[in-house]
Amino acid sequence: MAEDDHAAAPEQAAREQDLTDRVVASFDRAGDERLKTVMQALTRHLHAFLREVRLTEDEWNKGIEFLTAAGHITDDRRQEFILLSDVLGASMQTIAINNEAYGSATEATVFGPFFMDDAPRIENGGDIAGGATGQPCWVEGTVTDTSGRPVRGARIEVWEADEDGFYDVQYGDERTAGRAHLYSDDDGGYRFWGITPTPYPIPHDGPVGALLAATGRSPLRAAHLHFMVTAPGLRTLVTHIFVRGDELLASDSVFGVKDSLVMDFEELPAGTPTPDGRAVAGTWSRTRFDMVLAPRE
Amino acid sequence: MAEDDHAAAPEQAAREQDLTDRVVASFDRAGDERLKTVMQALTRHLHAFLREVRLTEDEWNKGIEFLTAAGHITDDRRQEFILLSDVLGASMQTIAINNEAYGSATEATVFGPFFMDDAPRIENGGDIAGGATGQPCWVEGTVTDTSGRPVRGARIEVWEADEDGFYDVQYGDERTAGRAHLYSDDDGGYRFWGITPTPYPIPHDGPVGALLAATGRSPLRAAHLHFMVTAPGLRTLVTHIFVRGDELLASDSVFGVKDSLVMDFEELPAGTPTPDGRAVAGTWSRTRFDMVLAPRE
Repeated sequence: MAEDDHAAAPEQAAREQDLTDRVVASFDRAGDERLKTVMQALTRHLHAFLREVRLTEDEWNKGIEFLTAAGHITDDRRQEFILLSDVLGASMQTIAINNEAYGSATEATVFGPFFMDDAPRIENGGDIAGGATGQPCWVEGTVTDTSGRPVRGARIEVWEADEDGFYDVQYGDERTAGRAHLYSDDDGGYRFWGITPTPYPIPHDGPVGALLAATGRSPLRAAHLHFMVTAPGLRTLVTHIFVRGDELLASDSVFGVKDSLVMDFEELPAGTPTPDGRAVAGTWSRTRFDMVLAPRE
Repeated sequence: MAEDDHAAAPEQAAREQDLTDRVVASFDRAGDERLKTVMQALTRHLHAFLREVRLTEDEWNKGIEFLTAAGHITDDRRQEFILLSDVLGASMQTIAINNEAYGSATEATVFGPFFMDDAPRIENGGDIAGGATGQPCWVEGTVTDTSGRPVRGARIEVWEADEDGFYDVQYGDERTAGRAHLYSDDDGGYRFWGITPTPYPIPHDGPVGALLAATGRSPLRAAHLHFMVTAPGLRTLVTHIFVRGDELLASDSVFGVKDSLVMDFEELPAGTPTPDGRAVAGTWSRTRFDMVLAPRE
């Protein structure tokens, strides 16, 4: 157990362990067994941390100040505690725990704070940009189950930042852009125009940004396009695709990258005919993402 | 290591451990070695907690909501994150880590949120009540070092709640009551009138109170009187004294009780002559607290 890692003398260690044991025991009467389990484990791990690093009273004060600042910057549009969970890899670890690999099923990654449940519907082949700036990108693929059977009518939500690194909701002007939902066709196929993903920083003007700066970490996220796919009887897939060659793949600020989610984005010169005959003024890109949904448990 | 406690299959466990390792490595470039140590340990223990309890996405959401609510109720007068640290025993553990036992030195306990650094000065034998309601209590004792030598001129700060369970600052009307500072005399002695400590709840109308209620825990603190004692060359002592016989000693909501800090409070009938000849209308109490200060490191 990590409780044994610290370097205190035996008598001191016994006093500290006794305190931990008393706090754990204080949760013995919790009516909800699961809540009891979670709070007792939280207590053990929190105390193990404090004891291992021999946290000073000044550091404890800094911790209280950090949480207070995070609470005060958090509002309806800004969620600093989710950012904190993200940069500590806690969001991604929770995703990993709850989305165990299942055969060939596509891997999940972080949900992020920018999904909206009222994105417009588009038909297959439609455009999700809605005015979001960026290089046009043709995205196509299939939705199948782990037996390889096409999944028809799967609801596919897609959302992404514009080329300036902002989601529509970050502009604060009620625009809807860079997001939509569509449904897979009878063959499980789907296709749409989006924009080529570009890297952007997570909001870093608050305490989490200060933490990243103090520890020499970048707030930048690797370029990505969000997906959430739902279909009856199948496990909901929340994931991204990433861009092969993006130099941020190894240092994504929220640890969302998985090798299996890195896709080839083909860059096409201006004038190259598009898959659906749409006229595109300049360069464009295309990628393919075939998704495999696990069965619901 | 606690990381090995959870029950995931080997491949899943490897994926989870790999994520933890990547987050730990992300702090490798922190310029400050101590910050690096603290953040890497925090990451390991946080991930160990998530993996051990197999935290669900719904529980993660509840955690984010809890921290958000704690942030929003916190202001200049209310500090919910300190309360959270208190009820998880993290405050007391930090005190324990930073105030290791030293020979016969008096033990420390939690500082609490109600100290004010501009409390009035009283002479030895004076009254700290300043209008705070409660049974008068005569408190006397000595301040010595661990060799038994009297410490003269030690600054002794004392503060306590009134019989309704409130500190002066909780009334929000600028009153100063139930707090003062005095100095030990040439023999290291001190004495003052206060009020007999009574139990009171920590503020429990916020998320921490809801957590206590959900887990069957009481918000009540065992009755106590706060001390902070400073003297040149000696370790500052932040402590309380508790009342022998108080039925809350075993369930103090912030785990502040130490056996060595439980004192006999003698209850005296109305009319009993007082040590300093002061006329007291009804019953009163008295206690003795001899403090021993450790050397400064």
